[in-house]
Parts: sequence; structure tokens; C-alpha cells
Amino acid sequence: MDPAQVSTVATEFTQFYYKTFSADRSQLHSLYRDQSMLTFEGQQFQGASKIIEKLASLPFQKVLHQISTIDAQPNFNGIFVCVTGALQVDEDAPQRFAQAFQLIPEGTSYYVLNDIFRLNYG
Amino acid sequence: MDPAQVSTVATEFTQFYYKTFSADRSQLHSLYRDQSMLTFEGQQFQGASKIIEKLASLPFQKVLHQISTIDAQPNFNGIFVCVTGALQVDEDAPQRFAQAFQLIPEGTSYYVLNDIFRLNYG
Repeated sequence: MDPAQVSTVATEFTQFYYKTFSADRSQLHSLYRDQSMLTFEGQQFQGASKIIEKLASLPFQKVLHQISTIDAQPNFNGIFVCVTGALQVDEDAPQRFAQAFQLIPEGTSYYVLNDIFRLNYG
Repeated sequence: MDPAQVSTVATEFTQFYYKTFSADRSQLHSLYRDQSMLTFEGQQFQGASKIIEKLASLPFQKVLHQISTIDAQPNFNGIFVCVTGALQVDEDAPQRFAQAFQLIPEGTSYYVLNDIFRLNYG
């Protein structure tokens, strides 16, 4: 895959992911499969249903991710993505976060096989 | 691969990686292959030689990584790892960072296929 395409897919995926996360987290279900894994602040979940159950249960109403960086590399016909940025929950102060994804091609699109999320504070 | 083994490999890899990074960055050559990729603060490098050339050229004498979190998941017979922490360069104040790795099994060990490093500041 050429580098420009890798970067374009990673950017479009990331923008869609966080926009959907803010609008309606349950809609992220379409991005995960049975074999997908999420590690969220150290807690592990496997399968689209358990992953969405966790994301939907997060105790906030409003969340906005401000993306600072999106880096991506090709592998296994898929894409390895690492995002850094800040997220703001309700009226709290923004917190730094890092999130890494392994995207796998499926038809004309991609699904998330691996997803690790961490707040990054001192 | 059972979850305990994934976690053990990721922890041992991460500890070895940063210990070697502090002691002698050029020794990290053994962890990369021709197909390995590094994205370091947005700059892309491919192949063990170019990756080590970049790491060796970083303009500091002393560097210490304080690891905060190591999260890992299995995939493709390999391991997907995301590390967060703080690094201190020479006598500067510590800076937050995030680094993600895709490890691939080779014989009784692993090499790094994908490596993305970012400082994570507001």
C-alpha cells in the first residue's frame, strides 16, 4: 500500500471514530468484530458487543477528542495507527491520551482488530 | 497465546528496549529487520540500519524512560503493545510520551515490525 493511502485511511478512520464517539458511542459497533480486542485503561474486552457495552457505560454525557497527531504504518495488508491528543469530558479540564489501533481490511473498508486506550498523565 | 504470556513478553520486551535505549541505542539494531518501520515524531524510517541511524543521531547524551503503563494484545501470532510514560533527557524536565509496537515472533524471540513514537504534550 502506498504511504499516502495509508495516511489517508488512518486519518479518515480516526476522524470518523472520534466524531462517532462524541455523537453516539454505540454506533462504533460497526467497526469491531468478534475477534476484536479493546484494552481501556488496563481493562480488557473482547468482541464487538462487550467493547460497545464498555464504551457505552462510560460515565459522562459529553466527550470531545482534540487530535494532536495521527501516525500510521502498513502491515499484514492492514494499518497500524497511533493517535495522541487531548480529550475533554463534560466540563472537566482536558486530559492527554494515547490510542493505538490495528486496522484490518474487509471488503472496501477496515475493521478494528486491536485497540488500546490510555490517558497519559504524569 | 494465553493472556499471561502476552503480558509477560510485552513487559520483558519493553524493559529490555528502554534499558538498552539508555545504555547504548545502537544495540537496538538486533530488534529490527529490513521490513521494520519507525515513525519518530512524524519522521518515517524503514529498515534496521536507517532506524538505528536515526536513534543514534538523537542529540542527547543521557535518556531515561519511566514507564507508566504497558498494555498488550495478541494478533497474527504476534503482539500489539502500547506503552506510556515519561522520559527525561539530560537534565531537562520529564516529558510524557506514547510508543506503540507490533512484535512478530521469530524463532524463540520477537522482532519489531512497527514502531511509532510520540511525545504527548498539550
